[in-house]
Order: sequence, then C-alpha cells, then structure tokens
Amino acid sequence: MRKFLDEDFLLTTETARKLYHEYAEVMPVLDYHCHIDPREIYEDRKFDNITQVWLGGDHYKWRQMRSNGVEETYITGDATDREKFQKWAETLEMAIGNPLYHWSHLELKRFFGYEGYLSGESAEEVWNLCNEKLQGGFSARRMIETSNVTLICTTDDPVDSLEWHKKIAEDESFSVQVLPAWRPDRAMNLEKPDYLEYLDKLSEASGVKIHSFAALTEALKKRMDFFASCGCSVSDHGLEYVMYAPASEEEVEAVFAKRLSGKAVTKDEEKLFKTAFMVALGKEYYRKNWVMQLHYGVRRDNNGKIFNALGPDAGIDCINNYAPSSEMADYLNALAKTDELPKTILYSLNPVDNAAIGTIIGCFQGCGAVGKIQQGSAWWFNDHKAGMQEQMTSLASLGLLGNFIGMLTDSRSFLSYTRHEYFRRIMCALIGGWVENGEYPEDYKTLEKIVKGISYNNAVRYFGFSL
Amino acid sequence: MRKFLDEDFLLTTETARKLYHEYAEVMPVLDYHCHIDPREIYEDRKFDNITQVWLGGDHYKWRQMRSNGVEETYITGDATDREKFQKWAETLEMAIGNPLYHWSHLELKRFFGYEGYLSGESAEEVWNLCNEKLQGGFSARRMIETSNVTLICTTDDPVDSLEWHKKIAEDESFSVQVLPAWRPDRAMNLEKPDYLEYLDKLSEASGVKIHSFAALTEALKKRMDFFASCGCSVSDHGLEYVMYAPASEEEVEAVFAKRLSGKAVTKDEEKLFKTAFMVALGKEYYRKNWVMQLHYGVRRDNNGKIFNALGPDAGIDCINNYAPSSEMADYLNALAKTDELPKTILYSLNPVDNAAIGTIIGCFQGCGAVGKIQQGSAWWFNDHKAGMQEQMTSLASLGLLGNFIGMLTDSRSFLSYTRHEYFRRIMCALIGGWVENGEYPEDYKTLEKIVKGISYNNAVRYFGFSL
Amino acid sequence: MRKFLDEDFLLTTETARKLYHEYAEVMPVLDYHCHIDPREIYEDRKFDNITQVWLGGDHYKWRQMRSNGVEETYITGDATDREKFQKWAETLEMAIGNPLYHWSHLELKRFFGYEGYLSGESAEEVWNLCNEKLQGGFSARRMIETSNVTLICTTDDPVDSLEWHKKIAEDESFSVQVLPAWRPDRAMNLEKPDYLEYLDKLSEASGVKIHSFAALTEALKKRMDFFASCGCSVSDHGLEYVMYAPASEEEVEAVFAKRLSGKAVTKDEEKLFKTAFMVALGKEYYRKNWVMQLHYGVRRDNNGKIFNALGPDAGIDCINNYAPSSEMADYLNALAKTDELPKTILYSLNPVDNAAIGTIIGCFQGCGAVGKIQQGSAWWFNDHKAGMQEQMTSLASLGLLGNFIGMLTDSRSFLSYTRHEYFRRIMCALIGGWVENGEYPEDYKTLEKIVKGISYNNAVRYFGFSL
Repeated sequence: MRKFLDEDFLLTTETARKLYHEYAEVMPVLDYHCHIDPREIYEDRKFDNITQVWLGGDHYKWRQMRSNGVEETYITGDATDREKFQKWAETLEMAIGNPLYHWSHLELKRFFGYEGYLSGESAEEVWNLCNEKLQGGFSARRMIETSNVTLICTTDDPVDSLEWHKKIAEDESFSVQVLPAWRPDRAMNLEKPDYLEYLDKLSEASGVKIHSFAALTEALKKRMDFFASCGCSVSDHGLEYVMYAPASEEEVEAVFAKRLSGKAVTKDEEKLFKTAFMVALGKEYYRKNWVMQLHYGVRRDNNGKIFNALGPDAGIDCINNYAPSSEMADYLNALAKTDELPKTILYSLNPVDNAAIGTIIGCFQGCGAVGKIQQGSAWWFNDHKAGMQEQMTSLASLGLLGNFIGMLTDSRSFLSYTRHEYFRRIMCALIGGWVENGEYPEDYKTLEKIVKGISYNNAVRYFGFSL
Repeated sequence: MRKFLDEDFLLTTETARKLYHEYAEVMPVLDYHCHIDPREIYEDRKFDNITQVWLGGDHYKWRQMRSNGVEETYITGDATDREKFQKWAETLEMAIGNPLYHWSHLELKRFFGYEGYLSGESAEEVWNLCNEKLQGGFSARRMIETSNVTLICTTDDPVDSLEWHKKIAEDESFSVQVLPAWRPDRAMNLEKPDYLEYLDKLSEASGVKIHSFAALTEALKKRMDFFASCGCSVSDHGLEYVMYAPASEEEVEAVFAKRLSGKAVTKDEEKLFKTAFMVALGKEYYRKNWVMQLHYGVRRDNNGKIFNALGPDAGIDCINNYAPSSEMADYLNALAKTDELPKTILYSLNPVDNAAIGTIIGCFQGCGAVGKIQQGSAWWFNDHKAGMQEQMTSLASLGLLGNFIGMLTDSRSFLSYTRHEYFRRIMCALIGGWVENGEYPEDYKTLEKIVKGISYNNAVRYFGFSL
Repeated sequence: MRKFLDEDFLLTTETARKLYHEYAEVMPVLDYHCHIDPREIYEDRKFDNITQVWLGGDHYKWRQMRSNGVEETYITGDATDREKFQKWAETLEMAIGNPLYHWSHLELKRFFGYEGYLSGESAEEVWNLCNEKLQGGFSARRMIETSNVTLICTTDDPVDSLEWHKKIAEDESFSVQVLPAWRPDRAMNLEKPDYLEYLDKLSEASGVKIHSFAALTEALKKRMDFFASCGCSVSDHGLEYVMYAPASEEEVEAVFAKRLSGKAVTKDEEKLFKTAFMVALGKEYYRKNWVMQLHYGVRRDNNGKIFNALGPDAGIDCINNYAPSSEMADYLNALAKTDELPKTILYSLNPVDNAAIGTIIGCFQGCGAVGKIQQGSAWWFNDHKAGMQEQMTSLASLGLLGNFIGMLTDSRSFLSYTRHEYFRRIMCALIGGWVENGEYPEDYKTLEKIVKGISYNNAVRYFGFSL
C-alpha cells in the first residue's frame, strides 16, 4: 500500500523512481501551449481565495460539479466563494480515478503544502490554508516562478496588439519568457455571424483592406511578421477536423466574395475556403520556420440552455468523432509535395485517433529535422493517466518516443504546471517498466537523454527557442 | 498462483478484497434492464435440465458453438439436450479469456455448488449435478431469490397488456418487484414491412385511431400512462445510431401519411421521422420523470442463411460503427435547450465510443440531479473484464465514477445475476488498485459510499424506486 | 529487474514461462502470409552485409530513420552501406518501446549470437559480427532453415508464371514448402491508369480474351486453376475498405465496358464493380476450398515528394479510418446467404476495428469448420506488443481464442521469423497471466492444446496443408 500522493506517486518500479527523481524532476518547465492571459502575468494578478484560482474560469471543474447535481448558482452563479468551494470539495470526493483528483491534490501539496486530502469535511481547513498564502502575496508570477518555468507561449488572435507581451519582455524583474502564439481561427471561420466585423478589425490591424482572399492572406502575413517581431514562432488552429477539399483560386475567391457580400456560404463552400486558408497559412509557416499546431476533433457549445446563459467555454464541449484520416493525409501532402510542410503537431480530442495519427506522422517525417511531425501530448479530455499512457504507448509502438516533445498545460490556470510533474511521473513509470521488464537495456546514459529530452530538451530543440 | 475462481477471484489486491467482501458482496441486486419473460416468473418456470437453462435461447452461446465448428443440429437443431450440452462443454474449453467461461463457472459454483470446471470430460458429472438440483425444484423464482434480487425491470412493448406484471404484483408469495420497462421500437421503425399491422394493434390497445403522427404520439402517451400505472418509470430504445435530422411538423406528418398509405419511405424520410419520434418521446419522459435508455450501435440479422432458418436473435448481430457524436449531441440538445431532457443512459455496442460518450454526458449534466446523464455499463459484447475495465476507466477519467449506476444483466436467463458479482469484483479491483497505488486516499468511509453506491445505492436513487 | 531480452523475455509469470518453453518454443513455424521473393529462395540469395538484409527494402525502418532526422541519402540514397547502418543504429536508440527495437535485437541474438545492444557506439562491432557470418554463407535458405520453418506462402499476381515456386518444389535439397498465394489486386483496381495494360497480360496468361466482366472472371478462374495446380490454396486482397454496393450484371458489365473503352469510371461505378469482383471471387474460393484473406484500412503513397522519388512501398502509407462495418457484414452475407462463403481472415490496419471485426466474425461462423472466419493477427503497424495484446484480448473476449490461427510475418525479410517468437511470448504471457490470476484452470493438458494450436497446429488444420 503506497501512501496517497507520496513522493513516489505513480512511480511503480525502482527504475521509474530513479528516472523520475534523477532525470525528470530536475528539468525546468517549457509550457509551449496554454491559454493564460498575458495581462494577468504582467499585472501579477493577486487572488483573494482559492475559489477564484480554481473555479473562476475552469469549465472542466464546472462539468464535474454539474455531474454531481450541484445547482448552477454554486458553480457560475451568485453563491459565495466559500459556498462554491464547499460544493467543489464535495464533488471531488466522487471523482475517484479522475485527473482532477490528482491535479487538485498536487496543487494543494506543491503550492500550499497541504498534506491531507480535500473533502466536504476538510474544506474549511483547506480554504483557510490556501487563502492565507494567497492573501500573503502568492501571486501569478510567484506561482510561475515556483514551478521552475522558463518559457510560456500564450494563445493570441492576429488582431491582438501583443502589448502585454511587450511589457513583460521589457520588465527586468520577471525572467520567464512569455511569447505569443498565433491562433487565427476567427480569420478562418467564415461561417460565423460576426465574420465581417472581424475582417474589419483585421484590416485595421494589418493596414490591408481585405476585399479578396488574396488580400486576407496578405493581411495575415503582415500580422505574422508583427507576431514574429514579438518572438512568436508557434501557430495554433482549432479545427472541427482536418479537412481537404482543393479548389481553384477563382473558386476560393468566389466563395470569399459571396461571404463578403453578406451572404451565408454552404458547407461545401466553407470546406473549400478553409482548405485554401490552411494551405496558404501552412506554406507561410514553412517559410517562417514556425511550428503549426492542429487541434481537432471538437464539437463546441452543445447545450443550448447553458450556452444561452454563459456563452462559450462553459463546459459544454465534446468529442467530434468525424475525422477522416485520408483528408488529413491529403492536407499534409498538399504542403509536403512541394516541400512546404512546416514542423507540425497533431492533436485530436478523440483518443481513437491515436493510431491513425501515429501512422500519418510517419509518412511526412524527414528533411533533416528530428521528429518534424509530432503527435501532441494527450489533449484536454485525454489528459489523464490512461490517456497519457495510451498516447505514449501508441507513439512508441509506431514511431520514436525518444524524440517526443512532451507536455504542455493547455490551461488558463497559474497552478496547472503540476500537470508537467504528473506527465513526467507517468512517462517515467512507462519507460521504467520497460527497462525492468527487459524490454530496453539498463543503459542510463541513453535513458537520461530520453527522459530529459521528453521532459524538456526535445521541446527546446524542436521550437528553437533561445533559453 | 491463485486457484481458479476462488473466493478472491479477480480481486488482485488486499484493498480490492476488503472493498468487495465488506461492501460490495453484501449489497442486493437491482436489475434495471433485462429481457426476462415476466410470465415465466409468474408461473415459476421449472427446468428439466441445464441445457434448457443455458442453451434454450442464449444466442451468445450459440455463436461460440458455431465458432467451434459445431453443427447447427447440436445448437438449435434436433440433437438431444445431453448431446447439446456435450458440444457446449467442449466449446467452452476453447473460450479461454471469454466472459462466458467465467459466467458459466460462476453460475455452476453459486447455484449448483460445483467446484470443478466444465469440459468435455466433466460434462457428464456437471449434467447430473445440475439436473438433480433443477428437477428438485430449483425454479425461476428460486434462482431470483437466491441471487438477492430486490427489483427487476423487464422489456415490454407498448401494446403489451402487462398482465403478468400485475399478477406478480398481486402474488404475496413473491417479494421481488418485477416492473415493466417501455420499449417502443416497433412504433418507431416505420421502415419495417409489418409497421401498419403494428399500428393497428397500437390503435386498439390505446383506443386512439392512428391517422397522423400527432395521433401516434397521443396513442403512445396513453400507453405510457398505463405503463406508469403498473409501476413503469424506465424506457428503452434500440437504435441503429442516435440520429438527428430536424424537420417541421408538416414534413413529419407528410412522411407518416406516406407510410400510412402503404408506400415505402426513403432513408432521409425515415431519419426525420425517427428524429421527431425520439424528440416527442424524450419530452414525455421528462414530463413523467422517467429514465430514457438509448442502446445503439447494432447491426442485426447479418447472416441470411441463419436468419431464414431461425429468425431474429439467432446470434448473428454485430457492431455498427457509424455513430456520429455530433448527431447524438444535437439530439440531446434538442431536449436540453428547452429544459426537457429526461434522465438518460447511453449505451453503445462499439467500445470505441467510450470517450465520445464520456464527453457528451458531461455537456448535459445538471439541474440538480446527481449523475443525470449516465454512460451505461459495458453492454452486450463489451460485457467482459477488459470491456468493463475500459468503460469504468473512461468514465472515471472523464466524469464522476462515484455516481455511476452500475450493472444490469440485459439477459434472458435466470442464472445471469452472477454477472453483477463479476462486475463488482472488477469494479473493486479497479478502485482497490488505485488506493493501493496511492491514487486515492485510504478513506474507507468514502470508499464504502462509492462501492455500495456503484453496486446498488446509486441505481436506487437514480431511478427513484421504492424499495 | 529482468536482463534485457533474456531467455524469459516478456514472460512475466511462472506459468507463462512454462507455457512458452514447454509448448510454444518447440513448435515449427508456418508462415502463411509474407512478401518474400521466391526467386531469392530458389537462388539462395547471399548478402554482403547487414545493411542489405535490414535496410535494402524495409520501408518500415526507413520511416523511423526519417523520424530521427536522417537525410534521405543515408536511407535510400547514395551513402555507403556502412554509413546507412550507422544512421540506423543511432535511430534505433530512440525507438524505445518500438517493436523494431525488439525484432532487431531478437534477430541479432538468434541469427548472429549478439548478446549486447545496438547503438551508435556498438554499430561497428555489430557490423563486423553480422557481416562475417553473412559472408560465411549465411544465406536466405540457411536463415529459413535455422528458423524451423515448414511452409511459406508468398504473395503472387495472377499473371505470375510461378516458375520459381516450381523450381523450389523440384529442388530436393530444400525441404521447406514454398507455396504461391493468389493476390489479384491489379485485376480489381480498374481505376488505375495501367489497368488495360494489365488486362492484356491477364488475357495472355489465361488464354481468355477479356472483353467483358464475365470474361474477366473466366480468365481469373483459369489462373486460379493454374495456381491450385502449384499448391495454392490461399488468396489475399488489399482493399481500401471492405465495400458493398450490389448491382445487376448489366450494370457491372456497363462499367467494365466503359473502362475497357479507355474512359475513367466514377467512384460509384468503381465501388459496384469492385463489389461484383469480390463476390465473384469469394464464391470461387468457396468452391475451391481456398482461404480468403482481406487486408483493409490502408491509405497508400501519401507523401508526393517521396512517392515521386521512390515510387510505392517507400514508407509513406497510413491508416484509412473509413471502414463501415455494415458494408463488411453485407459483403460477407452476400456469400453466406447462399452458402458460398469461404474460410475468411479479416485484417484491418486500424486497431480501432478490433471489436467490430470480433463481432462480425461471430455472425458467419459455422458449417462444421473450426474457426471458419478469423480475425487476422495484429497487422503491419499493429504488430507490436500492445497491438498483439489488444488483438488477442479482443478476440478472446468476443470469441474463441483457442481456435486462433496465430502469427504470420507479412515480411520481405528472411530474418523476420523471430516475430513468431515475439508473438508466442506475448501470447504465453497473456494466457499464463490468466491462469496465475485464477481466470482459467491450471489444466496443462488443455493449455498445451491451446498454446500449440495458436503457435502452429491451428494454422495447419485451418489451411489444410500437407506437412
């Protein structure tokens, strides 16, 4: 019987413990994809209490509270922060086997020194303990520094001024790099009602009047240059699925013109437009040596009642299981056949896609880059023990795990860096198990290279950050 | 080396053994979904021999016998019961790793006290042992009572008179509740050749002349009132997949009128009709506070030669892997957006759907009900050790396992209650493993609540049965 | 800590070790599906060095080298064999958890007696050791004989003269049977640009002028007779997916006539033609008592840049995840309903299909053949530890593992027979684990039958080879 969440948490073999404590634990954190607001970093946000930190915007926790029958008033409504915390504590008891159980307790332990476990009964004690530390100056920047983070990539719209990134860069009192990442979803989603308004903003930001698809890409390139000047070298796309419907320039311009005229486009038109958009941007990423991240397999805003009350990011998203691997292969080939495929990371919300992704990335590797095409770490709903084990086992079985760029938080929270610890423990348990089982030699020189690589070094090399 | 099927069968850790023997084993059985014939309960069916019990209608076993090269005469044909039993015993030897191996031996042990294992060699011994007990009065009711069952929901067509349910309820010599469950598949499947004949029966049973879709729903509501008066609070649907194609009332009426006129409908027409049907009934379930069960992902009657000889339920069904998660989300939202979504349980025959279901149920929880939307226990072909581990691991990783309503038999057999034992052992092994591994605190007060909940209490609370 | 790749490699329990060493290890190898060139067997190909053996045509290894950032010149280009070997050795270090790591070391150990592990550092030592043995006469035939192989089925086009098979059969100095297997993909793929040229070759080989679909099937039947006369009793198809779109004879002839006239056919026409083709051939296999192998779920030649440089089989294939289970069931039923379904083995490249396949095969078993419809062993990209565990666990959970026909190499390499060892170790670990865990009785008589069956005897019985 191992004690709950002790120092060897998840490290099931002697070799796993050695790999983790000697190689993984000591590495810094590079968080190359998250949703933190850079303004909160610059302003060094303070928190009155743990509910603000944990439940302010974390729709992942909201879902679980709804699952436990908690009324919305205690989730996103008017109840007091203390009441909300109580409901969360009671919910957590039922979350046996859920990553939120582990993450929450890792956060309590690492950041607040709490050695017990949160429940309805201990909620008062935990509330007081956390709030004392928070009110004592444990702010956003302190949380980041405590976590040994060297670099953070946020997620930013092309029209963003990046003013907070600039201010952070100029602030010598904070040594962690905070770089923008390019997320042009709003420029692609021409089916949205507010698309034309968005184009106006983009015209203004870029200084390019967007009267054609060619002008749209021109405007985006200007903004990419600006992002690059602020240190950006990473892009990110949120896609329903990775689609491919090639069309002539004329067809694409016709669809765009139709939309510009205020008309709605058909599903087929939307698809050929988005294909052209993604091909144009992919080629530009290649020219700029940026990394292209494709997040796909999501169906958003599924519950009309909650959406009407709270809007997007309210905990009502699910897996979209339509994702033809043939179209994803065709899209990548549209870039590869002319040697314009950038470094690419593929993330599906559907764990069922693991094997298909693993075989697709193998088709597009090469050109002298190590692990040029990557399968992203188990993403969002898959970011749990079984999900990470499956993603890494699949990756290892189909490709070179040794070149994997590893973990990211994808989070809005300043406490979420313990997920890197969680990931590294699971990774060391997996690799350590293989060594103990005679499936890989007990060669610690190579194992150190592999474990440190997956923990940190591979990502540094892959993205080419200066650290 | 653990002895075959000993008292700690499947309980791989000390904690698992404690959880099972102290908390799970002692709980009664609530079998909220099965296919037992209530008449056989009322009449307290007797059996001459074990072949009648095991092979009379269990097409799951028939498949395995065909797999072993057994001629049909020894399966569904004219061979003697003793000969059939011999063939089954020989087949079972090859079923290593199959749940039938475990179920069969649990049944032999728990009901007949047999401590060995069934094979071609031991078949004679087992035959005699079982038949002695069966002929000595070990009847349907005794099997149910021996299993500590408190309540059974059968599966019943809207035109059913429910006479046997009424008679059982009036019979004071039998204390187990046997309630009807509402399964209106025949009222929905307008593509079937005998649909109009079925509507005649439904008109007669309901007293509503079905000349329109509005009249159809009216007739069904009348029958639901009748079912409710007999204690029914559970519905059940067998769907190819959970589809969603909204249409106007006029369109739906036009399709129904076309079918009433004796014409066949197109696939698109079928889809919009079935959507309207499911939306109408879902809303009615909400009004009645019934539970809606959706069983989907099945392709039935695939082998024409066997179907022509034996008809449906002959062991020739398979997984249908077409099940767009976006349509399932849209269907649930069609009810949720106006706050008319009933308590719902989703079961897919395709284990690949686990994660998609887990994320969808999270979108529709709430309204003060604990675990309002459930993923059903690993169903039919997935009802084996790996399948149950995967379903529970997925459920735990994505939601609150602590609120899971647990197991059902989905069976036609009076011996199948040992599947609840099988499930509870696997559940305790999973949870016990987490505790031993330091992934959940050794807090037996909460663990008792969780284990007893999943075994029995959660289902009682969820369905709201009076026990 | 188990030593790397020791004699009990992968055998995690005492029972597993007993099963493997007493029952599995001693059985010969029957390799019923591979891509070896029979000419190389007849001519007893010699090798100058290990790069020729390992990297000459193994696009599976090429993918991993590209993944490691190796330039194409060191993979398929002009670099020396020694340089290529160095790059491979360095790549292999990163392949922790990959089957190539295990296969490569099993080959080094079993064929060359190397007890260490290959890395950039040990590459020179391994290079010398292997080349010494290769240059000392360790030729193709010696590799086969060393592996205790009794029979090999190659993969052959209907127009093939089978001259090398005949010569091998006549050569009394080589006792291993080398039989042709029938692979008529080129006769089916009417969408290919060179289809008409292929038909000319088939006309010539068969002596049947192919002016209609009826004539095409006639020509193929003649060639099947010829193949049968050379000992063939196994067919094999490479399919995008198992499709079913029935049409009248007239429609099929019209599509074929259109293609014969030099025109391209539509996707719908292609589908109905291929359906007719597969139905016609399936029935003929049944008449001949041949086994039908269906390999599906592949998207080939995805990277245009590499394809233009190297052509097919260049390591640029991936999973095609479009594979409707309903069409596969319909296709099998098209043969079964008239009792013309041959023995069939289903292999999907997508591991997600395991459960669907497991349920489909159960629908079509019977007619007195043991395990008539089989799920093929974990294929191609799935041929790794986790993939084999999942395939066998799924098969066991849904059907009769005891009747499984087991492993094949599917390889172009004369060293790949160690994959049978790899498979048997994993199989014995799985079964041994069940016995140790009390899930199957410790009945060694039956376990011996099961383990020897899956290792070898089941395949002998299934294919009906004379050995």
